[in-house]
Amino acid sequence: MTCVKMLAAPINPSDINRIQGNYPVKPQLPAVGGYEGVGEEHGRYVVKEQSAWHKINSGTPVEYAATITVNPLTALRMLEDFVDLKPGDAIVQNGATSIVGQCIVQLARIRGIHSINVIRDSALSDEVKEKLKRLGADKVYTETQLELKKFKEFLANIPAPALGFNCIGGHSATTVLAFLGQGGTMVTYGGMSKLPVTVSTSSFIFKDLSLKGFWLQKWLGSNKAEECRVMLDHLLGLVREGKLTYEYVSL
Amino acid sequence: MTCVKMLAAPINPSDINRIQGNYPVKPQLPAVGGYEGVGEEHGRYVVKEQSAWHKINSGTPVEYAATITVNPLTALRMLEDFVDLKPGDAIVQNGATSIVGQCIVQLARIRGIHSINVIRDSALSDEVKEKLKRLGADKVYTETQLELKKFKEFLANIPAPALGFNCIGGHSATTVLAFLGQGGTMVTYGGMSKLPVTVSTSSFIFKDLSLKGFWLQKWLGSNKAEECRVMLDHLLGLVREGKLTYEYVSL
Ligand SMILES: NC(=O)c1ccc[n+]([C@@H]2O[C@H](COP(=O)([O-])OP(=O)(O)OC[C@H]3O[C@@H](n4cnc5c(N)ncnc54)[C@H](OP(=O)(O)O)[C@@H]3O)[C@@H](O)[C@H]2O)c1
Ligand SMILES: NC(=O)c1ccc[n+]([C@@H]2O[C@H](COP(=O)([O-])OP(=O)(O)OC[C@H]3O[C@@H](n4cnc5c(N)ncnc54)[C@H](OP(=O)(O)O)[C@@H]3O)[C@@H](O)[C@H]2O)c1
Repeated sequence: MTCVKMLAAPINPSDINRIQGNYPVKPQLPAVGGYEGVGEEHGRYVVKEQSAWHKINSGTPVEYAATITVNPLTALRMLEDFVDLKPGDAIVQNGATSIVGQCIVQLARIRGIHSINVIRDSALSDEVKEKLKRLGADKVYTETQLELKKFKEFLANIPAPALGFNCIGGHSATTVLAFLGQGGTMVTYGGMSKLPVTVSTSSFIFKDLSLKGFWLQKWLGSNKAEECRVMLDHLLGLVREGKLTYEYVSL
Repeated sequence: MTCVKMLAAPINPSDINRIQGNYPVKPQLPAVGGYEGVGEEHGRYVVKEQSAWHKINSGTPVEYAATITVNPLTALRMLEDFVDLKPGDAIVQNGATSIVGQCIVQLARIRGIHSINVIRDSALSDEVKEKLKRLGADKVYTETQLELKKFKEFLANIPAPALGFNCIGGHSATTVLAFLGQGGTMVTYGGMSKLPVTVSTSSFIFKDLSLKGFWLQKWLGSNKAEECRVMLDHLLGLVREGKLTYEYVSL
Protein backbone atom coordinates (compact mmCIF):
# COMPACT_ATOMS: atom_id res chain seq x y z
CA MET A 1 0.00 0.00 0.00
CA THR A 2 1.19 3.51 -0.80
CA CYS A 3 -0.08 6.69 0.84
CA VAL A 4 -0.36 9.64 -1.53
CA LYS A 5 -1.44 13.21 -0.88
CA MET A 6 -3.35 14.34 -3.97
CA LEU A 7 -2.10 17.59 -5.53
CA ALA A 8 -4.32 17.91 -8.62
CA ALA A 9 -6.99 15.99 -10.50
CA PRO A 10 -8.98 17.08 -13.57
CA ILE A 11 -12.71 16.78 -14.17
CA ASN A 12 -13.02 15.01 -17.54
CA PRO A 13 -16.29 14.66 -19.49
CA SER A 14 -16.27 10.95 -18.59
CA ASP A 15 -16.26 11.84 -14.87
CA ILE A 16 -19.43 13.86 -15.39
CA ASN A 17 -21.00 11.05 -17.44
CA ARG A 18 -20.15 8.56 -14.73
CA ILE A 19 -21.63 10.72 -11.98
CA GLN A 20 -24.76 11.21 -14.13
CA GLY A 21 -25.05 7.43 -14.43
CA ASN A 22 -24.54 7.42 -18.22
CA TYR A 23 -21.62 5.04 -18.05
CA PRO A 24 -22.19 1.32 -18.59
CA VAL A 25 -19.84 0.40 -15.72
CA LYS A 26 -21.28 1.64 -12.44
CA PRO A 27 -18.83 1.74 -9.49
CA GLN A 28 -19.80 0.47 -6.04
CA LEU A 29 -20.75 3.34 -3.74
CA PRO A 30 -19.16 5.19 -2.00
CA ALA A 31 -16.86 5.85 -4.98
CA VAL A 32 -14.26 8.40 -6.07
CA GLY A 33 -15.65 10.58 -8.84
CA GLY A 34 -12.56 10.82 -11.04
CA TYR A 35 -10.23 8.72 -13.15
CA GLU A 36 -6.84 10.41 -12.83
CA GLY A 37 -4.73 12.79 -10.78
CA VAL A 38 -1.28 13.43 -9.35
CA GLY A 39 0.01 13.41 -5.77
CA GLU A 40 3.04 13.19 -3.48
CA GLU A 41 4.05 10.01 -1.73
CA HIS A 42 3.90 9.99 2.11
CA GLY A 43 0.97 12.33 2.23
CA ARG A 44 -2.02 11.07 4.16
CA TYR A 45 -5.03 11.09 1.91
CA VAL A 46 -5.26 8.38 -0.74
CA VAL A 47 -4.16 4.83 0.04
CA LYS A 48 -4.01 2.28 -2.75
CA GLU A 49 -1.85 -0.69 -3.70
CA GLN A 50 1.45 0.49 -5.19
CA SER A 51 0.63 -0.80 -8.71
CA ALA A 52 -2.17 1.77 -9.01
CA TRP A 53 0.41 4.57 -9.02
CA HIS A 54 2.93 5.57 -11.65
CA LYS A 55 6.14 7.34 -10.56
CA ILE A 56 6.88 10.48 -12.55
CA ASN A 57 9.91 12.67 -13.10
CA SER A 58 9.86 15.54 -10.58
CA GLY A 59 10.48 18.05 -13.40
CA THR A 60 7.00 17.40 -14.82
CA PRO A 61 4.43 20.22 -14.52
CA VAL A 62 1.72 19.13 -12.10
CA GLU A 63 -1.20 19.98 -14.42
CA TYR A 64 0.21 17.65 -17.10
CA ALA A 65 1.08 14.88 -14.66
CA ALA A 66 -2.51 15.03 -13.41
CA THR A 67 -4.06 14.77 -16.88
CA ILE A 68 -1.70 12.61 -18.93
CA THR A 69 -3.70 9.37 -18.87
CA VAL A 70 -7.27 9.96 -19.99
CA ASN A 71 -6.85 12.34 -22.92
CA PRO A 72 -3.26 12.18 -24.25
CA LEU A 73 -3.15 8.38 -24.03
CA THR A 74 -6.49 8.18 -25.87
CA ALA A 75 -5.05 10.38 -28.63
CA LEU A 76 -1.89 8.25 -28.83
CA ARG A 77 -3.73 4.90 -29.00
CA MET A 78 -6.28 6.11 -31.54
CA LEU A 79 -3.49 7.28 -33.86
CA GLU A 80 -1.75 3.89 -33.57
CA ASP A 81 -4.41 1.20 -33.30
CA PHE A 82 -6.76 1.60 -36.27
CA VAL A 83 -4.94 2.50 -39.47
CA ASP A 84 -1.28 2.08 -40.37
CA LEU A 85 -0.42 5.72 -41.06
CA LYS A 86 2.78 6.81 -42.78
CA PRO A 87 4.44 10.23 -42.88
CA GLY A 88 2.58 12.38 -45.43
CA ASP A 89 -0.78 10.71 -44.72
CA ALA A 90 -3.63 12.70 -43.22
CA ILE A 91 -6.23 12.42 -40.47
CA VAL A 92 -9.42 14.43 -39.96
CA GLN A 93 -11.17 15.18 -36.67
CA ASN A 94 -13.98 17.17 -35.15
CA GLY A 95 -13.89 18.61 -31.63
CA ALA A 96 -10.35 19.71 -32.43
CA THR A 97 -10.41 22.21 -29.53
CA SER A 98 -10.85 19.41 -26.99
CA ILE A 99 -7.80 18.26 -25.04
CA VAL A 100 -7.88 14.95 -26.96
CA GLY A 101 -8.12 16.94 -30.21
CA GLN A 102 -5.13 19.14 -29.35
CA CYS A 103 -3.08 16.04 -28.48
CA ILE A 104 -4.05 14.41 -31.80
CA VAL A 105 -2.85 17.48 -33.73
CA GLN A 106 0.53 17.44 -31.98
CA LEU A 107 1.11 13.68 -31.94
CA ALA A 108 0.17 13.50 -35.64
CA ARG A 109 2.56 16.32 -36.47
CA ILE A 110 5.43 14.60 -34.63
CA ARG A 111 4.85 11.60 -36.94
CA GLY A 112 4.66 13.80 -40.06
CA ILE A 113 0.92 13.22 -40.44
CA HIS A 114 -1.29 16.09 -41.66
CA SER A 115 -4.37 17.01 -39.66
CA ILE A 116 -7.65 18.48 -40.93
CA ASN A 117 -9.60 19.93 -38.03
CA VAL A 118 -13.26 20.81 -37.59
CA ILE A 119 -14.31 23.26 -34.83
CA ARG A 120 -17.56 24.85 -33.71
CA ASP A 121 -18.42 28.34 -34.86
CA SER A 122 -17.90 31.04 -32.22
CA ALA A 123 -16.88 34.69 -31.94
CA LEU A 124 -13.38 33.41 -31.24
CA SER A 125 -13.10 31.03 -34.23
CA ASP A 126 -10.25 32.94 -35.86
CA GLU A 127 -8.23 33.03 -32.66
CA VAL A 128 -8.90 29.35 -32.05
CA LYS A 129 -7.77 28.51 -35.60
CA GLU A 130 -4.47 30.32 -35.02
CA LYS A 131 -3.91 28.50 -31.74
CA LEU A 132 -4.51 25.12 -33.36
CA LYS A 133 -2.24 25.99 -36.28
CA ARG A 134 0.51 26.93 -33.84
CA LEU A 135 0.13 23.45 -32.35
CA GLY A 136 0.68 22.00 -35.83
CA ALA A 137 -2.78 21.77 -37.40
CA ASP A 138 -2.61 21.89 -41.22
CA LYS A 139 -6.21 22.96 -41.79
CA VAL A 140 -8.91 24.19 -39.42
CA TYR A 141 -12.50 24.75 -40.59
CA THR A 142 -15.63 25.80 -38.72
CA GLU A 143 -18.76 23.75 -39.26
CA THR A 144 -20.34 26.69 -41.14
CA GLN A 145 -17.42 26.93 -43.56
CA LEU A 146 -17.92 23.26 -44.37
CA GLU A 147 -21.52 23.83 -45.43
CA LEU A 148 -20.00 24.75 -48.79
CA LYS A 149 -19.19 21.02 -49.13
CA LYS A 150 -16.10 21.63 -51.23
CA PHE A 151 -14.24 18.88 -49.43
CA LYS A 152 -11.72 18.30 -52.21
CA GLU A 153 -10.83 22.02 -52.29
CA PHE A 154 -10.68 22.15 -48.50
CA LEU A 155 -8.03 19.42 -48.59
CA ALA A 156 -5.95 21.34 -51.17
CA ASN A 157 -2.60 19.51 -51.45
CA ILE A 158 -3.22 17.12 -48.58
CA PRO A 159 -4.20 13.51 -49.39
CA ALA A 160 -7.73 12.41 -48.47
CA PRO A 161 -7.55 11.23 -44.85
CA ALA A 162 -7.51 7.47 -44.19
CA LEU A 163 -8.51 7.97 -40.55
CA GLY A 164 -11.01 10.25 -38.85
CA PHE A 165 -11.94 10.92 -35.22
CA ASN A 166 -15.36 11.90 -33.95
CA CYS A 167 -16.12 13.10 -30.41
CA ILE A 168 -19.17 15.23 -31.30
CA GLY A 169 -21.75 13.23 -33.35
CA GLY A 170 -24.59 14.64 -35.45
CA HIS A 171 -23.73 16.88 -38.40
CA SER A 172 -20.18 17.33 -37.16
CA ALA A 173 -19.57 13.57 -37.55
CA THR A 174 -20.97 13.79 -41.08
CA THR A 175 -18.27 16.34 -41.98
CA VAL A 176 -15.59 13.92 -40.79
CA LEU A 177 -17.09 11.18 -42.98
CA ALA A 178 -17.20 13.58 -45.94
CA PHE A 179 -13.47 14.35 -45.64
CA LEU A 180 -12.45 10.68 -45.43
CA GLY A 181 -11.03 9.06 -48.55
CA GLN A 182 -12.14 5.78 -50.16
CA GLY A 183 -11.81 2.92 -47.63
CA GLY A 184 -11.31 5.30 -44.69
CA THR A 185 -12.08 4.59 -41.03
CA MET A 186 -13.88 6.87 -38.56
CA VAL A 187 -13.34 6.20 -34.86
CA THR A 188 -16.00 7.56 -32.49
CA TYR A 189 -14.72 8.22 -28.97
CA GLY A 190 -17.15 10.82 -27.65
CA GLY A 191 -20.57 12.35 -28.26
CA MET A 192 -20.42 15.93 -26.93
CA SER A 193 -23.49 17.08 -28.95
CA LYS A 194 -25.49 14.08 -27.67
CA LEU A 195 -26.57 13.46 -31.28
CA PRO A 196 -26.07 10.07 -32.95
CA VAL A 197 -23.95 9.43 -36.03
CA THR A 198 -25.88 9.21 -39.31
CA VAL A 199 -24.31 7.49 -42.32
CA SER A 200 -25.58 7.07 -45.87
CA THR A 201 -25.80 3.60 -47.41
CA SER A 202 -23.47 4.66 -50.22
CA SER A 203 -20.75 5.65 -47.72
CA PHE A 204 -20.61 1.99 -46.74
CA ILE A 205 -21.11 0.32 -50.13
CA PHE A 206 -19.37 2.61 -52.62
CA LYS A 207 -16.97 4.59 -50.39
CA ASP A 208 -16.18 1.49 -48.33
CA LEU A 209 -15.98 3.43 -45.05
CA SER A 210 -15.55 1.60 -41.73
CA LEU A 211 -16.92 3.00 -38.46
CA LYS A 212 -15.51 1.89 -35.14
CA GLY A 213 -15.28 3.02 -31.53
CA PHE A 214 -12.56 3.49 -28.93
CA TRP A 215 -12.84 3.28 -25.16
CA LEU A 216 -9.69 3.81 -23.13
CA GLN A 217 -11.12 1.97 -20.13
CA LYS A 218 -11.54 -1.18 -22.20
CA TRP A 219 -8.04 -0.78 -23.65
CA LEU A 220 -6.56 -0.34 -20.16
CA GLY A 221 -8.40 -3.45 -18.98
CA SER A 222 -6.79 -5.65 -21.61
CA ASN A 223 -3.51 -6.44 -19.85
CA LYS A 224 -1.80 -3.29 -21.04
CA ALA A 225 -0.52 -2.08 -17.63
CA GLU A 226 3.17 -2.35 -18.46
CA GLU A 227 2.88 -0.99 -22.01
CA CYS A 228 0.82 1.83 -20.58
CA ARG A 229 3.59 2.98 -18.22
CA VAL A 230 6.02 3.21 -21.14
CA MET A 231 3.49 5.32 -23.04
CA LEU A 232 2.83 7.66 -20.12
CA ASP A 233 6.59 8.22 -19.73
CA HIS A 234 6.83 8.86 -23.46
CA LEU A 235 4.00 11.41 -23.33
CA LEU A 236 5.36 13.14 -20.21
CA GLY A 237 8.75 13.28 -21.95
CA LEU A 238 7.11 15.12 -24.86
CA VAL A 239 5.52 17.52 -22.35
CA ARG A 240 8.91 18.29 -20.75
CA GLU A 241 10.41 18.86 -24.22
CA GLY A 242 7.61 21.32 -25.00
CA LYS A 243 6.30 19.14 -27.85
CA LEU A 244 2.99 18.33 -26.18
CA THR A 245 1.01 21.14 -24.64
CA TYR A 246 -2.70 21.67 -24.13
CA GLU A 247 -5.19 24.03 -22.65
CA TYR A 248 -8.92 24.39 -23.03
CA VAL A 249 -8.83 26.88 -25.90
CA SER A 250 -12.48 27.85 -26.47
CA LEU A 251 -14.96 29.76 -24.36
CA MET B 1 -14.78 -14.45 -78.80
CA THR B 2 -17.79 -16.57 -77.92
CA CYS B 3 -21.31 -16.13 -79.31
CA VAL B 4 -24.05 -16.76 -76.78
CA LYS B 5 -27.83 -16.66 -77.19
CA MET B 6 -29.25 -15.26 -73.95
CA LEU B 7 -31.94 -17.43 -72.34
CA ALA B 8 -32.68 -15.52 -69.12
CA ALA B 9 -31.44 -12.53 -67.14
CA PRO B 10 -32.83 -11.06 -63.89
CA ILE B 11 -33.51 -7.42 -63.06
CA ASN B 12 -31.69 -6.82 -59.77
CA PRO B 13 -32.11 -3.67 -57.62
CA SER B 14 -28.59 -2.64 -58.68
CA ASP B 15 -29.68 -2.73 -62.35
CA ILE B 16 -32.42 -0.24 -61.55
CA ASN B 17 -30.02 1.93 -59.54
CA ARG B 18 -27.58 1.92 -62.41
CA ILE B 19 -30.21 2.89 -64.96
CA GLN B 20 -31.39 5.67 -62.59
CA GLY B 21 -27.80 6.93 -62.46
CA ASN B 22 -27.42 6.26 -58.70
CA TYR B 23 -24.36 4.09 -59.17
CA PRO B 24 -20.91 5.63 -58.78
CA VAL B 25 -19.58 3.75 -61.83
CA LYS B 26 -21.36 4.97 -64.95
CA PRO B 27 -20.97 2.72 -68.03
CA GLN B 28 -20.20 4.16 -71.46
CA LEU B 29 -23.35 4.42 -73.59
CA PRO B 30 -24.82 2.49 -75.33
CA ALA B 31 -24.66 -0.06 -72.48
CA VAL B 32 -26.35 -3.30 -71.44
CA GLY B 33 -28.69 -2.66 -68.49
CA GLY B 34 -27.94 -5.80 -66.47
CA TYR B 35 -25.15 -7.59 -64.61
CA GLU B 36 -25.89 -11.29 -65.06
CA GLY B 37 -27.74 -13.85 -67.16
CA VAL B 38 -27.51 -17.28 -68.77
CA GLY B 39 -27.37 -18.34 -72.40
CA GLU B 40 -26.46 -21.07 -74.88
CA GLU B 41 -23.23 -21.11 -76.82
CA HIS B 42 -23.44 -20.76 -80.64
CA GLY B 43 -26.48 -18.57 -80.52
CA ARG B 44 -26.14 -15.30 -82.30
CA TYR B 45 -26.86 -12.50 -79.92
CA VAL B 46 -24.18 -11.67 -77.37
CA VAL B 47 -20.53 -11.75 -78.36
CA LYS B 48 -17.87 -11.33 -75.68
CA GLU B 49 -14.38 -12.67 -75.02
CA GLN B 50 -14.56 -16.22 -73.68
CA SER B 51 -13.35 -15.26 -70.16
CA ALA B 52 -16.53 -13.27 -69.58
CA TRP B 53 -18.55 -16.50 -69.60
CA HIS B 54 -18.70 -19.32 -67.10
CA LYS B 55 -19.61 -22.82 -68.30
CA ILE B 56 -22.30 -24.48 -66.22
CA ASN B 57 -23.57 -28.00 -65.76
CA SER B 58 -26.51 -28.61 -68.14
CA GLY B 59 -28.60 -30.02 -65.26
CA THR B 60 -28.79 -26.57 -63.65
CA PRO B 61 -32.22 -24.85 -63.65
CA VAL B 62 -32.03 -21.83 -65.95
CA GLU B 63 -33.48 -19.37 -63.41
CA TYR B 64 -30.71 -20.22 -60.94
CA ALA B 65 -27.96 -20.20 -63.54
CA ALA B 66 -29.14 -16.72 -64.57
CA THR B 67 -29.10 -15.33 -61.02
CA ILE B 68 -26.27 -17.12 -59.22
CA THR B 69 -23.70 -14.31 -59.30
CA VAL B 70 -25.15 -11.10 -57.93
CA ASN B 71 -27.15 -12.28 -54.91
CA PRO B 72 -25.95 -15.78 -53.83
CA LEU B 73 -22.28 -14.84 -54.24
CA THR B 74 -22.87 -11.67 -52.20
CA ALA B 75 -24.43 -13.78 -49.44
CA LEU B 76 -21.51 -16.24 -49.53
CA ARG B 77 -18.78 -13.58 -49.41
CA MET B 78 -20.47 -11.58 -46.65
CA LEU B 79 -20.70 -14.69 -44.46
CA GLU B 80 -17.00 -15.45 -45.03
CA ASP B 81 -15.14 -12.14 -45.26
CA PHE B 82 -15.96 -10.13 -42.13
CA VAL B 83 -16.15 -12.29 -39.00
CA ASP B 84 -14.70 -15.73 -38.37
CA LEU B 85 -17.94 -17.58 -37.56
CA LYS B 86 -18.02 -21.03 -36.00
CA PRO B 87 -20.88 -23.56 -35.85
CA GLY B 88 -23.25 -22.50 -33.09
CA ASP B 89 -22.60 -18.77 -33.65
CA ALA B 90 -25.37 -16.50 -34.86
CA ILE B 91 -25.97 -13.79 -37.45
CA VAL B 92 -28.79 -11.22 -37.66
CA GLN B 93 -30.17 -9.57 -40.79
CA ASN B 94 -32.95 -7.35 -42.03
CA GLY B 95 -34.54 -7.64 -45.48
CA ALA B 96 -34.59 -11.39 -44.86
CA THR B 97 -37.18 -11.86 -47.62
CA SER B 98 -34.77 -10.55 -50.27
CA ILE B 99 -32.97 -13.08 -52.46
CA VAL B 100 -29.69 -12.21 -50.70
CA GLY B 101 -31.46 -12.67 -47.35
CA GLN B 102 -32.82 -16.10 -48.30
CA CYS B 103 -29.36 -17.19 -49.45
CA ILE B 104 -27.84 -15.98 -46.15
CA VAL B 105 -30.36 -18.06 -44.16
CA GLN B 106 -29.52 -21.22 -46.12
CA LEU B 107 -25.75 -20.76 -46.38
CA ALA B 108 -25.60 -19.98 -42.64
CA ARG B 109 -27.63 -23.08 -41.83
CA ILE B 110 -25.32 -25.29 -43.93
CA ARG B 111 -22.45 -24.04 -41.73
CA GLY B 112 -24.40 -24.61 -38.50
CA ILE B 113 -24.82 -20.86 -37.91
CA HIS B 114 -28.08 -19.58 -36.42
CA SER B 115 -29.93 -16.77 -38.15
CA ILE B 116 -32.14 -14.06 -36.63
CA ASN B 117 -34.25 -12.43 -39.32
CA VAL B 118 -36.10 -9.14 -39.47
CA ILE B 119 -38.90 -8.67 -42.04
CA ARG B 120 -41.38 -5.91 -42.87
CA ASP B 121 -44.90 -6.09 -41.50
CA SER B 122 -47.52 -7.17 -44.02
CA ALA B 123 -50.77 -9.11 -44.20
CA LEU B 124 -48.66 -12.11 -45.18
CA SER B 125 -46.10 -11.88 -42.34
CA ASP B 126 -47.06 -15.23 -40.82
CA GLU B 127 -46.82 -17.03 -44.14
CA VAL B 128 -43.47 -15.37 -44.88
CA LYS B 129 -42.15 -16.41 -41.45
CA GLU B 130 -43.06 -20.04 -42.16
CA LYS B 131 -41.37 -19.92 -45.56
CA LEU B 132 -38.17 -18.51 -44.06
CA LYS B 133 -38.22 -21.08 -41.26
CA ARG B 134 -38.55 -23.86 -43.81
CA LEU B 135 -35.39 -22.47 -45.45
CA GLY B 136 -33.61 -22.79 -42.08
CA ALA B 137 -34.22 -19.47 -40.29
CA ASP B 138 -34.05 -19.86 -36.49
CA LYS B 139 -36.02 -16.72 -35.64
CA VAL B 140 -38.07 -14.33 -37.76
CA TYR B 141 -39.51 -11.08 -36.35
CA THR B 142 -41.46 -8.29 -37.96
CA GLU B 143 -40.29 -4.73 -37.31
CA THR B 144 -43.42 -4.10 -35.20
CA GLN B 145 -42.71 -7.09 -32.96
CA LEU B 146 -39.27 -5.66 -32.29
CA GLU B 147 -40.72 -2.41 -30.98
CA LEU B 148 -40.99 -4.30 -27.68
CA LYS B 149 -37.17 -4.07 -27.58
CA LYS B 150 -36.79 -7.32 -25.65
CA PHE B 151 -33.75 -8.26 -27.69
CA LYS B 152 -32.36 -10.67 -25.11
CA GLU B 153 -35.69 -12.54 -24.92
CA PHE B 154 -36.00 -12.51 -28.70
CA LEU B 155 -32.67 -14.32 -28.91
CA ALA B 156 -33.78 -16.98 -26.39
CA ASN B 157 -31.10 -19.71 -26.41
CA ILE B 158 -29.16 -18.34 -29.34
CA PRO B 159 -25.89 -16.47 -28.64
CA ALA B 160 -25.85 -12.73 -29.39
CA PRO B 161 -24.88 -12.39 -33.07
CA ALA B 162 -21.31 -11.40 -33.90
CA LEU B 163 -22.30 -10.38 -37.44
CA GLY B 164 -25.27 -8.51 -38.87
CA PHE B 165 -26.37 -7.62 -42.39
CA ASN B 166 -28.31 -4.54 -43.39
CA CYS B 167 -29.90 -3.96 -46.82
CA ILE B 168 -32.71 -1.64 -45.63
CA GLY B 169 -31.34 1.26 -43.50
CA GLY B 170 -33.34 3.52 -41.16
CA HIS B 171 -35.06 1.95 -38.17
CA SER B 172 -34.62 -1.53 -39.61
CA ALA B 173 -30.83 -1.11 -39.44
CA THR B 174 -31.18 0.00 -35.83
CA THR B 175 -32.85 -3.33 -34.97
CA VAL B 176 -29.88 -5.19 -36.46
CA LEU B 177 -27.51 -3.12 -34.29
CA ALA B 178 -29.65 -3.81 -31.23
CA PHE B 179 -29.42 -7.59 -31.74
CA LEU B 180 -25.64 -7.57 -32.18
CA GLY B 181 -23.51 -8.67 -29.25
CA GLN B 182 -20.54 -6.78 -27.75
CA GLY B 183 -17.87 -6.19 -30.40
CA GLY B 184 -20.21 -7.18 -33.25
CA THR B 185 -19.97 -6.07 -36.89
CA MET B 186 -22.79 -4.82 -39.13
CA VAL B 187 -22.25 -4.99 -42.89
CA THR B 188 -24.41 -2.68 -45.02
CA TYR B 189 -24.93 -3.92 -48.57
CA GLY B 190 -28.16 -2.22 -49.60
CA GLY B 191 -30.51 0.63 -48.71
CA MET B 192 -33.99 -0.43 -49.86
CA SER B 193 -35.78 2.12 -47.60
CA LYS B 194 -33.53 4.93 -48.89
CA LEU B 195 -32.98 5.95 -45.25
CA PRO B 196 -29.47 6.31 -43.78
CA VAL B 197 -28.10 4.28 -40.88
CA THR B 198 -28.19 6.04 -37.49
CA VAL B 199 -25.94 4.86 -34.67
CA SER B 200 -25.63 6.01 -31.07
CA THR B 201 -22.25 7.08 -29.70
CA SER B 202 -22.46 4.42 -26.99
CA SER B 203 -22.86 1.67 -29.61
CA PHE B 204 -19.37 2.57 -30.77
CA ILE B 205 -17.66 3.33 -27.44
CA PHE B 206 -19.24 0.93 -24.97
CA LYS B 207 -20.66 -1.81 -27.22
CA ASP B 208 -17.60 -1.64 -29.50
CA LEU B 209 -19.63 -2.20 -32.69
CA SER B 210 -17.97 -1.95 -36.11
CA LEU B 211 -19.87 -0.86 -39.22
CA LYS B 212 -18.66 -1.75 -42.67
CA GLY B 213 -19.93 -2.10 -46.22
CA PHE B 214 -19.80 -4.71 -48.98
CA TRP B 215 -19.91 -4.20 -52.73
CA LEU B 216 -19.69 -7.28 -54.92
CA GLN B 217 -18.50 -5.25 -57.91
CA LYS B 218 -15.44 -4.10 -55.97
CA TRP B 219 -14.80 -7.64 -54.72
CA LEU B 220 -15.05 -9.02 -58.28
CA GLY B 221 -12.63 -6.36 -59.47
CA SER B 222 -9.93 -7.43 -57.07
CA ASN B 223 -8.37 -10.27 -59.07
CA LYS B 224 -10.87 -12.82 -57.83
CA ALA B 225 -11.92 -14.20 -61.26
CA GLU B 226 -10.62 -17.72 -60.69
CA GLU B 227 -11.78 -17.99 -57.06
CA CYS B 228 -15.12 -16.70 -58.24
CA ARG B 229 -15.64 -19.56 -60.72
CA VAL B 230 -15.04 -22.12 -57.95
CA MET B 231 -17.62 -20.34 -55.79
CA LEU B 232 -20.24 -20.19 -58.55
CA ASP B 233 -19.78 -23.94 -59.17
CA HIS B 234 -20.12 -24.54 -55.43
CA LEU B 235 -23.33 -22.48 -55.25
CA LEU B 236 -24.82 -24.11 -58.37
CA GLY B 237 -23.94 -27.50 -56.85
CA LEU B 238 -25.97 -26.57 -53.76
CA VAL B 239 -28.85 -25.57 -56.06
CA ARG B 240 -28.79 -28.95 -57.83
CA GLU B 241 -28.72 -30.74 -54.45
CA GLY B 242 -31.80 -28.73 -53.36
CA LYS B 243 -29.86 -27.02 -50.53
CA LEU B 244 -30.08 -23.53 -52.02
CA THR B 245 -33.41 -22.31 -53.28
CA TYR B 246 -34.94 -18.86 -53.53
CA GLU B 247 -37.96 -17.03 -54.77
CA TYR B 248 -39.29 -13.53 -54.13
CA VAL B 249 -41.48 -14.45 -51.15
CA SER B 250 -43.36 -11.21 -50.29
CA LEU B 251 -45.97 -9.24 -52.13
N1 LIG C 1 -13.59 6.97 -25.45
C1 LIG C 1 -12.60 7.27 -24.60
O1 LIG C 1 -11.88 6.40 -24.13
C2 LIG C 1 -12.35 8.70 -24.26
C3 LIG C 1 -11.19 9.10 -23.59
C4 LIG C 1 -11.01 10.46 -23.35
C5 LIG C 1 -11.96 11.40 -23.73
N2 LIG C 1 -13.08 10.96 -24.34
C6 LIG C 1 -14.12 11.88 -24.83
O2 LIG C 1 -13.51 12.79 -25.66
C7 LIG C 1 -14.27 13.98 -25.70
C8 LIG C 1 -13.34 15.14 -25.46
O3 LIG C 1 -12.83 15.08 -24.13
P1 LIG C 1 -11.88 16.23 -23.59
O4 LIG C 1 -11.65 16.06 -22.13
O5 LIG C 1 -10.70 16.34 -24.51
O6 LIG C 1 -12.90 17.47 -23.83
P2 LIG C 1 -12.77 19.00 -23.48
O7 LIG C 1 -11.34 19.42 -23.47
O8 LIG C 1 -13.64 19.24 -22.29
O9 LIG C 1 -13.45 19.65 -24.80
C9 LIG C 1 -14.80 19.47 -25.09
C10 LIG C 1 -14.99 19.55 -26.58
O10 LIG C 1 -16.34 19.33 -26.92
C11 LIG C 1 -16.83 20.42 -27.71
N3 LIG C 1 -18.25 20.56 -27.35
C12 LIG C 1 -18.79 20.67 -26.13
N4 LIG C 1 -20.14 20.69 -26.21
C13 LIG C 1 -20.46 20.60 -27.52
C14 LIG C 1 -21.68 20.59 -28.25
N5 LIG C 1 -22.88 20.67 -27.64
N6 LIG C 1 -21.62 20.51 -29.61
C15 LIG C 1 -20.44 20.44 -30.23
N7 LIG C 1 -19.24 20.44 -29.59
C16 LIG C 1 -19.26 20.52 -28.26
C17 LIG C 1 -15.98 21.61 -27.30
O11 LIG C 1 -16.01 22.55 -28.33
P3 LIG C 1 -15.77 24.13 -28.03
O12 LIG C 1 -14.27 24.27 -27.86
O13 LIG C 1 -16.29 24.78 -29.27
O14 LIG C 1 -16.53 24.46 -26.79
C18 LIG C 1 -14.62 20.91 -27.17
O15 LIG C 1 -14.05 20.67 -28.44
C19 LIG C 1 -15.36 13.81 -24.64
O16 LIG C 1 -16.54 13.38 -25.28
C20 LIG C 1 -14.83 12.70 -23.76
O17 LIG C 1 -15.84 11.96 -23.12
C21 LIG C 1 -13.29 9.64 -24.60
N1 LIG D 1 -23.65 -4.51 -52.22
C1 LIG D 1 -23.71 -5.50 -53.10
O1 LIG D 1 -22.71 -5.93 -53.67
C2 LIG D 1 -25.05 -6.11 -53.40
C3 LIG D 1 -25.15 -7.30 -54.12
C4 LIG D 1 -26.43 -7.84 -54.30
C5 LIG D 1 -27.57 -7.19 -53.82
N2 LIG D 1 -27.40 -6.00 -53.17
C6 LIG D 1 -28.53 -5.27 -52.57
O2 LIG D 1 -29.21 -6.17 -51.73
C7 LIG D 1 -30.56 -5.75 -51.59
C8 LIG D 1 -31.45 -6.95 -51.84
O3 LIG D 1 -31.30 -7.37 -53.20
P1 LIG D 1 -32.22 -8.56 -53.73
O4 LIG D 1 -32.08 -8.67 -55.19
O5 LIG D 1 -31.94 -9.76 -52.88
O6 LIG D 1 -33.64 -7.92 -53.37
P2 LIG D 1 -35.11 -8.43 -53.65
O7 LIG D 1 -35.13 -9.92 -53.73
O8 LIG D 1 -35.66 -7.62 -54.78
O9 LIG D 1 -35.83 -8.02 -52.26
C9 LIG D 1 -36.00 -6.68 -51.90
C10 LIG D 1 -36.05 -6.62 -50.38
O10 LIG D 1 -36.17 -5.26 -49.97
C11 LIG D 1 -37.31 -5.12 -49.10
N3 LIG D 1 -37.84 -3.77 -49.33
C12 LIG D 1 -38.17 -3.23 -50.53
N4 LIG D 1 -38.56 -1.94 -50.36
C13 LIG D 1 -38.47 -1.68 -49.03
C14 LIG D 1 -38.75 -0.53 -48.22
N5 LIG D 1 -39.17 0.62 -48.75
N6 LIG D 1 -38.57 -0.63 -46.89
C15 LIG D 1 -38.14 -1.78 -46.35
N7 LIG D 1 -37.85 -2.89 -47.06
C16 LIG D 1 -38.03 -2.84 -48.38
C17 LIG D 1 -38.24 -6.23 -49.51
O11 LIG D 1 -39.09 -6.51 -48.42
P3 LIG D 1 -40.57 -7.17 -48.66
O12 LIG D 1 -40.31 -8.64 -48.93
O13 LIG D 1 -41.24 -6.90 -47.36
O14 LIG D 1 -41.17 -6.47 -49.86
C18 LIG D 1 -37.24 -7.36 -49.76
O15 LIG D 1 -36.77 -7.92 -48.54
C19 LIG D 1 -30.74 -4.61 -52.59
O16 LIG D 1 -30.61 -3.39 -51.88
C20 LIG D 1 -29.58 -4.78 -53.54
O17 LIG D 1 -29.17 -3.58 -54.15
C21 LIG D 1 -26.18 -5.47 -52.94
